[in-house]
Amino acid sequence: MHSIPAVITLTTDFGLTDPYVGQLKGALLKGCRTATIVDLTHAIPPWDVAAAAITVRTSYVFFPSGTVHLAVVDPQVGSRRPILAAAGDEHLFVGPDNGILSLLIKDGRIEVLHRLTNPVFFSSPVSCTFHGRDIMAPLAAYLAGGGSLADIGPAVAPRDVIMISEPSVSRQGHRLHGQVRHIDHFGNIRTNIPCCSSSVDLCTFVGLEIGGCWLPHLVRTYSEVAPGGLLVLVDSSGYLEIAANQANAALQLGSTIGDEVIVHFSP
Amino acid sequence: MHSIPAVITLTTDFGLTDPYVGQLKGALLKGCRTATIVDLTHAIPPWDVAAAAITVRTSYVFFPSGTVHLAVVDPQVGSRRPILAAAGDEHLFVGPDNGILSLLIKDGRIEVLHRLTNPVFFSSPVSCTFHGRDIMAPLAAYLAGGGSLADIGPAVAPRDVIMISEPSVSRQGHRLHGQVRHIDHFGNIRTNIPCCSSSVDLCTFVGLEIGGCWLPHLVRTYSEVAPGGLLVLVDSSGYLEIAANQANAALQLGSTIGDEVIVHFSP
Amino acid sequence: MHSIPAVITLTTDFGLTDPYVGQLKGALLKGCRTATIVDLTHAIPPWDVAAAAITVRTSYVFFPSGTVHLAVVDPQVGSRRPILAAAGDEHLFVGPDNGILSLLIKDGRIEVLHRLTNPVFFSSPVSCTFHGRDIMAPLAAYLAGGGSLADIGPAVAPRDVIMISEPSVSRQGHRLHGQVRHIDHFGNIRTNIPCCSSSVDLCTFVGLEIGGCWLPHLVRTYSEVAPGGLLVLVDSSGYLEIAANQANAALQLGSTIGDEVIVHFSP
Repeated sequence: MHSIPAVITLTTDFGLTDPYVGQLKGALLKGCRTATIVDLTHAIPPWDVAAAAITVRTSYVFFPSGTVHLAVVDPQVGSRRPILAAAGDEHLFVGPDNGILSLLIKDGRIEVLHRLTNPVFFSSPVSCTFHGRDIMAPLAAYLAGGGSLADIGPAVAPRDVIMISEPSVSRQGHRLHGQVRHIDHFGNIRTNIPCCSSSVDLCTFVGLEIGGCWLPHLVRTYSEVAPGGLLVLVDSSGYLEIAANQANAALQLGSTIGDEVIVHFSP
Repeated sequence: MHSIPAVITLTTDFGLTDPYVGQLKGALLKGCRTATIVDLTHAIPPWDVAAAAITVRTSYVFFPSGTVHLAVVDPQVGSRRPILAAAGDEHLFVGPDNGILSLLIKDGRIEVLHRLTNPVFFSSPVSCTFHGRDIMAPLAAYLAGGGSLADIGPAVAPRDVIMISEPSVSRQGHRLHGQVRHIDHFGNIRTNIPCCSSSVDLCTFVGLEIGGCWLPHLVRTYSEVAPGGLLVLVDSSGYLEIAANQANAALQLGSTIGDEVIVHFSP
Repeated sequence: MHSIPAVITLTTDFGLTDPYVGQLKGALLKGCRTATIVDLTHAIPPWDVAAAAITVRTSYVFFPSGTVHLAVVDPQVGSRRPILAAAGDEHLFVGPDNGILSLLIKDGRIEVLHRLTNPVFFSSPVSCTFHGRDIMAPLAAYLAGGGSLADIGPAVAPRDVIMISEPSVSRQGHRLHGQVRHIDHFGNIRTNIPCCSSSVDLCTFVGLEIGGCWLPHLVRTYSEVAPGGLLVLVDSSGYLEIAANQANAALQLGSTIGDEVIVHFSP
């Protein structure tokens, strides 16, 4: 048993109305009684593997070193698709081999990757429709309790796992073309344009186009514009965000996920 | 104090918008500071005792032995209806005497049943509208901390507590008639037809009727049919479920709770 | 490290669909690994500081002594508005200086109040849009771990912090005029009329007016009237509430927040 309690985060598309999340937590506690379990979100749109992959990528770093991040969006549950566990950047990750961990691989965060084959994890009763509870939770608990990745099955190369593609950001002259990636609870419009990238120099920002609107205000904080006013800023994960001060920007602009966003820079 | 932290699960109709669940957890922590509290669900439809009873019945087994399961759907709160605590199958259960624990009794899971009369649990200020927080949470915390059932009040016989009736599954020749019991977050249609019952031999499954539709595909996993396709399988609690691969079966079929489901078997 | 785990409660307008609450919990656990974190609510209407202030005021007392209550509704995030930490009534409180702690001050619950200036809390990377995660969570964790208020910055006088006004309850002859303050998940209509006040003598209650309806039934519990029937009672926080037995009073009465409520007493 750890003297420092293990932390396990959960990212799923289970929602909060059914007892599925609770049952999965029961399985985690059976395997690691002292774990502290944190919900990252259970509101991933059903079967949206990419949304879960993005959530884990942008959130894991805010947790203590050694945290186990379990991501379960699993449309192929019960089939022969493998289950993966990975380590990198002082964190651990568990999920099905459907791309859910692939953005971490793409970002170079993963150092070791193993495929689950150890029969111990398949020997208890396993529902064909809930591997999250019956296989992946015991695996995450095993790792949270200090279990070794090498014991779960063979190492696999990153090139042998399923990768998901994400819309890319492209530069055309003094313009950068990106997309709306997420609309949050406040109506803030989060894009896929990273601000710490070498291709983005916010000092030369001229304006941002979205849905036929031109937004010239790049600010540091929401309250720099009048209440209701639209603005552009760097979000809390380091990407460009379109928002309104104490108002719902997505409703004002009629924006949806996938909409084009164009940032204009001065020469 | 336990060396192994106690686990307490919660099943309520409180929702997640108000601070009621949080206040109840505060009361649990006042009584048992080291407890790990897990939300099973707070989305039971308001005052729906039967839905809570089904949730506890199908979920408790996924938790560690010794877990205390507190279920609070309590339309008669503040009246003289008793409060019960029970033990069985290596778990503990607390709830009002309104049928919420009765499916566990019906299933033969309960070994000991006590009615709360110990004045200690009624001596602090008690709101007439929130016995969950002011009486049942301290009781659950007491049991989680190792308190004895015998100390809370007299043993009662199962025949002396309120039972709820549930729609039964009936056999007519080579057909089994059941009901839609729950529609989950994914639109999966969960029935009251148990698959491990001796009356259900899935090897002779011919097809399932629901809402005028005929579903001939009994599969093991969602991904055995094409995306969007309807299917029948065994759910993660061992009951028959109608679903669609990566789609919302309840919307497709227009199903609601209580709809009839007929399973046809070959002679 | 504590032998008794610290408790930290959260009251925010973050909702539960985005990973913001999870990220904030990660920051809390980085600062205090053994903390037990309890969600009071994340469903405060976006930017509604007063609703958060009321939630903390009516809920903190149900938690163990020494609990740290972190309230983050922060429309001015990233600006120069100060961050406060306070102690009183054996609890600790953290939030922005925008009125979120002001009802506790008004109620006389706060004994010591400090403004955060210690550069340690500003030295790690701080997002301009998420001080809850990057400044206030580390501060709450510091206090939960036994840190001293005096170390975070100078003491401030209550008169120097932002206060919010709340609609008052006024007496006119034998009538008391109050307001609908909150409508809960059950449709119960919660008012701002405190029942333990010297100006409210429920023994002389004659009836209550709301939205043109006259409610003569003052009861102790919901089940004292027939199912569906309207009633008036004392809610679980000590305020007057209008409800219906196993039905939605707010829908029946068409009530919304801010509606006038008039209580009539006998001479």
